Amino acid sequence: MDLYSGHINKLIDELSGLPGIGSKSAQRLAFHLINMPKDKVDRLVKTILEAKENVRYCRECFTLTDSEVCPVCANAKRDHSTIMVVENTRDLAAYEKTGKYEGVYHVLHGAISPMLGIGPGDIKLKELVARLEKDVSEVIIATNSSLEGETTAMYISKLIKPTGIRVTRIASGVPVGGDLEYIDEVTLLRALEGRTEL
Amino acid sequence: MDLYSGHINKLIDELSGLPGIGSKSAQRLAFHLINMPKDKVDRLVKTILEAKENVRYCRECFTLTDSEVCPVCANAKRDHSTIMVVENTRDLAAYEKTGKYEGVYHVLHGAISPMLGIGPGDIKLKELVARLEKDVSEVIIATNSSLEGETTAMYISKLIKPTGIRVTRIASGVPVGGDLEYIDEVTLLRALEGRTEL
Repeated sequence: MDLYSGHINKLIDELSGLPGIGSKSAQRLAFHLINMPKDKVDRLVKTILEAKENVRYCRECFTLTDSEVCPVCANAKRDHSTIMVVENTRDLAAYEKTGKYEGVYHVLHGAISPMLGIGPGDIKLKELVARLEKDVSEVIIATNSSLEGETTAMYISKLIKPTGIRVTRIASGVPVGGDLEYIDEVTLLRALEGRTEL
Repeated sequence: MDLYSGHINKLIDELSGLPGIGSKSAQRLAFHLINMPKDKVDRLVKTILEAKENVRYCRECFTLTDSEVCPVCANAKRDHSTIMVVENTRDLAAYEKTGKYEGVYHVLHGAISPMLGIGPGDIKLKELVARLEKDVSEVIIATNSSLEGETTAMYISKLIKPTGIRVTRIASGVPVGGDLEYIDEVTLLRALEGRTEL
């Protein structure tokens, strides 16, 4: 649309491309950014670039972190023989927030989705299998209870069972179709307690 | 919160400060930015900085534009003796979208709000009064139909009436409490047609 000047339109276009930002929000954001003091814009931009530059995968569990090994994996007090598999770093944070889980994590960065053409090779599954060579007693699958999450859980279960390692799935106290990161801590804990053999 | 690493937390904090972005959206956005290819992040950042650098106020009507005078003010075919007063550039765009308004605009960049401590001196009112020295036959007040918008309309009306210039207010076909930019074109036009003397 040509309602605004070139630079404004370009900015609105860029912002509309971000997740959860529709065309109206993009307009609001664009004008907000243009009206913001220059030093605040510079600080925002610097923060984006620094995060992009410095945030990397944890060498062990592949969560996003500032250091080579994330704080959970670096913590000797955590139970390194229990691995909870989650789809992303936000889901890991959701379980960390409960303060009750003492094992470590494995972050897949996605879920298997034939619809979207995401196969087992596109998520951190090879890396999970590699970790099983160490002393692991249980793998808790905490992927979302969506179609993709369930598919991924089944796949991982079939992959790991032959090794003799215990494979469990968090209970579906989590509402079907729900996204882990939006669920309250009590429900997350109940789902953890009610986990069943796969 | 210390759920994430320093750089991620800092980015989430910065993003939460933007309008319409809550803490969950900020988390989603932050991880999206971190996972975006570097060249796309650079392009986004460049667009923000260029817009910030190049967008300025139109010398005449104070809308945000790339050039010294905006396309509406630069257009000799527009009726320069009719000025529509709006709160911001998005509201101007909403009326431009109807394609039926032939006058020019004046953008206040805000509305009088005793609650927020925004007085007449904080918006582009002096600049509106200065424009009245030229040949102006009508000032149409199209501020929002919120408390602040109505207050601003009353204030402007009292300010201009002594000059003998016709002052009108767009009809309240616009729902009370509504924001101009979200209203459909037909309603906007009806409100324009039904404008009354103040």
